[in-house]
Amino acid sequence: MQSTKLINQSIDTIRTLSMDGVQKANSGHPGAPMALAPAAYVLFRRIMKHHPGQPQWMDRDRFILSNGHASMLQYSTLYLTGYGLSLDDLKSFRQWESKTPGHPEYDITPGVETTTGPLGQGFMTGIGMAMAEAHLGAKYNRPGFEIIDHHTYAICSDGDLMEGASHEAASLAGHLGLGKLIYLYDDNHITIEGKTDLAFSEDVEKRFEAYGWQVINLGECANDVVKITDAFEEAKAEKEKPSLIILRTHIGFGSPNYQDTAEAHGSPLGEEEVILTKKSYGWPSETPFYVPDGVLDHMNCREEGEERFQKWNKVYQNYRNEFPELAVELERSLNQSLTDNWKDHLPTFSPEDGNMATRAVNSKVLNAISDVIPWLIGGSADLEPSTKTAMKGKGHFSKENYSGRNIAWGIREMAMCAASSGMALHKGLRPYAATFFVFTDYARAAIRLSAIMELPVIYVMTHDSIGLGEDGPTHQPIEHLASLRAMPNLTLIRPADANETVVAWKVALERKKNPVMLVLSRQGLPILDRSVYAPASGVEKGAYILSKEQGEKPAAIIIATGSEVQLALEAQKILSDSDIDTRVVSMPSWELFENQDETYQDNVLPPAITNRVSIEAGAKMGWHKWVGNKGKVIGIDHFGASAPYKKIYEEFGITAKAIVENVRAMIE
Amino acid sequence: MQSTKLINQSIDTIRTLSMDGVQKANSGHPGAPMALAPAAYVLFRRIMKHHPGQPQWMDRDRFILSNGHASMLQYSTLYLTGYGLSLDDLKSFRQWESKTPGHPEYDITPGVETTTGPLGQGFMTGIGMAMAEAHLGAKYNRPGFEIIDHHTYAICSDGDLMEGASHEAASLAGHLGLGKLIYLYDDNHITIEGKTDLAFSEDVEKRFEAYGWQVINLGECANDVVKITDAFEEAKAEKEKPSLIILRTHIGFGSPNYQDTAEAHGSPLGEEEVILTKKSYGWPSETPFYVPDGVLDHMNCREEGEERFQKWNKVYQNYRNEFPELAVELERSLNQSLTDNWKDHLPTFSPEDGNMATRAVNSKVLNAISDVIPWLIGGSADLEPSTKTAMKGKGHFSKENYSGRNIAWGIREMAMCAASSGMALHKGLRPYAATFFVFTDYARAAIRLSAIMELPVIYVMTHDSIGLGEDGPTHQPIEHLASLRAMPNLTLIRPADANETVVAWKVALERKKNPVMLVLSRQGLPILDRSVYAPASGVEKGAYILSKEQGEKPAAIIIATGSEVQLALEAQKILSDSDIDTRVVSMPSWELFENQDETYQDNVLPPAITNRVSIEAGAKMGWHKWVGNKGKVIGIDHFGASAPYKKIYEEFGITAKAIVENVRAMIE
Repeated sequence: MQSTKLINQSIDTIRTLSMDGVQKANSGHPGAPMALAPAAYVLFRRIMKHHPGQPQWMDRDRFILSNGHASMLQYSTLYLTGYGLSLDDLKSFRQWESKTPGHPEYDITPGVETTTGPLGQGFMTGIGMAMAEAHLGAKYNRPGFEIIDHHTYAICSDGDLMEGASHEAASLAGHLGLGKLIYLYDDNHITIEGKTDLAFSEDVEKRFEAYGWQVINLGECANDVVKITDAFEEAKAEKEKPSLIILRTHIGFGSPNYQDTAEAHGSPLGEEEVILTKKSYGWPSETPFYVPDGVLDHMNCREEGEERFQKWNKVYQNYRNEFPELAVELERSLNQSLTDNWKDHLPTFSPEDGNMATRAVNSKVLNAISDVIPWLIGGSADLEPSTKTAMKGKGHFSKENYSGRNIAWGIREMAMCAASSGMALHKGLRPYAATFFVFTDYARAAIRLSAIMELPVIYVMTHDSIGLGEDGPTHQPIEHLASLRAMPNLTLIRPADANETVVAWKVALERKKNPVMLVLSRQGLPILDRSVYAPASGVEKGAYILSKEQGEKPAAIIIATGSEVQLALEAQKILSDSDIDTRVVSMPSWELFENQDETYQDNVLPPAITNRVSIEAGAKMGWHKWVGNKGKVIGIDHFGASAPYKKIYEEFGITAKAIVENVRAMIE
Repeated sequence: MQSTKLINQSIDTIRTLSMDGVQKANSGHPGAPMALAPAAYVLFRRIMKHHPGQPQWMDRDRFILSNGHASMLQYSTLYLTGYGLSLDDLKSFRQWESKTPGHPEYDITPGVETTTGPLGQGFMTGIGMAMAEAHLGAKYNRPGFEIIDHHTYAICSDGDLMEGASHEAASLAGHLGLGKLIYLYDDNHITIEGKTDLAFSEDVEKRFEAYGWQVINLGECANDVVKITDAFEEAKAEKEKPSLIILRTHIGFGSPNYQDTAEAHGSPLGEEEVILTKKSYGWPSETPFYVPDGVLDHMNCREEGEERFQKWNKVYQNYRNEFPELAVELERSLNQSLTDNWKDHLPTFSPEDGNMATRAVNSKVLNAISDVIPWLIGGSADLEPSTKTAMKGKGHFSKENYSGRNIAWGIREMAMCAASSGMALHKGLRPYAATFFVFTDYARAAIRLSAIMELPVIYVMTHDSIGLGEDGPTHQPIEHLASLRAMPNLTLIRPADANETVVAWKVALERKKNPVMLVLSRQGLPILDRSVYAPASGVEKGAYILSKEQGEKPAAIIIATGSEVQLALEAQKILSDSDIDTRVVSMPSWELFENQDETYQDNVLPPAITNRVSIEAGAKMGWHKWVGNKGKVIGIDHFGASAPYKKIYEEFGITAKAIVENVRAMIE
């Protein structure tokens, strides 16, 4: 039996390191780490299957600190358990380029599985990790070879539970019966504005039971490691339902003046109060960042981790021998290694195929490659018949069939996107997430996190403009192209026809890093005759000369994206009939074009040609960069309208005629 | 007793008109109206206090169709009950400029209280309406003069309940004990992808009980007007809790081939099926838009409405006599009539006041005007100590004190924004909603609707850039300025100092239409000496010459917003020391500047001066419009970092030095 003293000292070390880190940074959140130290101790020291020396171990338990502001809790614990953080790292909390930023950030600190901070996000992301575990386990485990069999743990706060995010994710997790998902709710009765009951009085226990979770309400025992341990064991024993452990905690535990107050939440305690608090713990030293003898030894998890890892590794090596094909596929999935010939499966289209909505291409692409990229998984937020994102014959992901690759997310856009990030973080899967483009508004906070974390999630956003017609302004994206182009790390591609869509998918699938968003039309678009126009492979460069001028130097350049490219071509023809020679540039992706070298950029948009007209059925914002001072931007800076789409295009002046008039006015 | 036949015919008329409307448009959602016709009948004909001849009557019950795709249900019912719609309007469903757009749109159709369509939004907006009713009632009612005493009804769907939106709003409504809020849940077991249980199996009844709602689970009785009526009466009898009536319905009711299928959801039934369905109703005619004799008379609510209205009006006229001051204030609130001298209350600041974060000005402004604008109400999403948005001495809005004007929204950004729209729609209040700027991502769908509806909500968004420092990339807005500037109808103002902030508040408060977003700094900013620089009133024009050049023609113009204006001034000084004469333009609001005439715009940014540098601690997107081809944009096209903010500014090159270098490079 471990000595109680050592356990308590270890817990208090988590607390004091956290206080000291915040105090040194003069910024941060000390209260939650002080309250949650025993729970973190139990999780890392007693419950979790992890190996600090192998933080990428495929079968490790995942841990998420959904209340990311309590980051010092995680950093202190990672330091003590041997994840390779140093005391100096803790002393650099919230400093430039440190390993211990203000909120946990993926890919910066070993042991941090996801970036958290915006409340509710970690909660949702964990669902995706547990879904990935369930799927990969169902697919690759064989009797006696449970090579994928781990839990996803999270600590979450009042804020997480108040956010709508938690509802979408919890309802889904209950529906899916994710038995290996175990969340601890830090029920501290305090928010930034004061007592939680200022704004929050729901019955959390009942709510989560309604979602189909097992709820273990521990009550007042935040310092009782035995009870907390037992609760986690009870949670693990429930295989059919996710579990929520409710723990009544005391924010700022031990602080004589700030315990159980909002003051303990988001500011350093102050040097005096830190000392007073340490006294209340019976702490042997006033020196900051003091670690008592024996604590590091007691907390270090490397040895046990190595044992567990080796035990697993032995099974896995046998698995490789027994099931070499499965092992190869699994490893390819983990590395996202496309086969050399995967591209041969991509379809191509010719004008004879008739008009085709670019969303319709989804179905063709996905079904062409679903076998050759078996780690592709995804679905839509209850819009599959519209987004056309089902992989036929690949089953529905459900409680009864975790090996299904089509996910019915329900009408939960944000949870869909965050859980897709969770699947990408877990590794072994390539997730895509689909809905109407306008509903990116619901998911923006989650999309942003995928961009911050540089995760290769594929967003498939259909119904991309007023071209959706009758549903009207609430469903017609206007500002969305601009607003998402402004987001760092996210690559938008808005293809002009079926073949450009195929190349867009290709670009997305070849990525190993950073999200791509495909922005696709509802309405049918003509398939461009590539024997007349440049090949669709130009999409890979973001913009390309689709239809070259006749002579040496065009009178103007017409730049268009997506469904408006056909209008540009129409205008080119009309102008040509009046001997006005123009160039048409298809520009499906600003981001890809910005990544090209200057020579290429200047070749497509020669600086000398300042007569430029852009056309896009969306906000004009940003287009001046491409058309310059002399150029004209045709776009829509007001909301849409409900009517058949051709009428709206006409009324809003998104027409070949408008291009022609602008070019004429320019060259006169 | 009304004849059962007439009742059934009336209900079937709602159904057939809805089917016919969708069929004629060849677009829309027939299934839900067919299922919900009896409930709509009961609400409009038996339950609601309304007057089709006075759709703006202050004390009417409000009705929201949260599943806005079922819009034909509402249009058919509004037509039949006498709201001034015609059969021709129904025949113009989803056509250009008709009164019957694809989803209900505020201010287009009499009787439509709010724009709906994106799921969850109507659900949240209704909470705000009920809060407004509770507040105004508590404030203005007097014993015997219950001049404000009405209910807020909504119909909502599976989709509404799956969205995180519904969680935020329902949890809050339960907490606030909004007894006059009554929602009907259309439990039809069908979503677009198929059976609801593909993705949704939570226990809705238990969930809403957990939120503190009364739940009335009616089960299978969607056509039983007596039971539905009784349920609404039971809901009205509960004064302390919001009520959810769960009604098991059958989508596409009566359609021989499509009832209870996803096919009935979002496409016309087809002409044949429409006829078959009408037969199943025993319908006397195959002619579309047929209204049986007697139905219009039976359904018309004008006479009863007039009686109710006159009864209320009598009480109100007596109230005006008894409580003239209250009545005047109430009427001023409804009209948002500012007193002539209200501006005199606004504070001004001088450099001697020291550095001041622009967020800190909120507190000064709000407390200076809270008495003179008694209809101002608002709060923050659990960040009040940071957003500084409390009105002192004005109480907290709570179950115990609905007259409180400070709202603790909890960590529910989207519900806060949507409910603020609800308060604006209700009329009689001017709502403001505050959180960190980065968290607009959570609320974007609701903010967009306020912009579509042109509602004068004031968004107070603080911590506006990397200037928030240590919290790191998850909390540092980068793309948010660009992404929200791209949204039509929304005016962003990012003031440079305390006095610009006061003017920004003034601009916002003087608006009667369209939302304004104030974007404010966390960090302290110097207060500009207005005896040296131009007056802050320039904010009203969006951009103004803050610091003029010395000579005739500046060598360059430096354009900045918010916290970067001080860097522009610093750069101007440095350049001036090398005899480089520049102009500094403060540009707090693109939208306000775009509204100025060309003369003013050319005065501030003379076309002849093409040496221009802009600086803003955010994405560069859009700035090329202002600096032109020759200009330079200093901004941030990558995510932020966790560190003290001055360090981040330095590392990211958002400095006076960068401006100086760019200007120098330009003029060489």
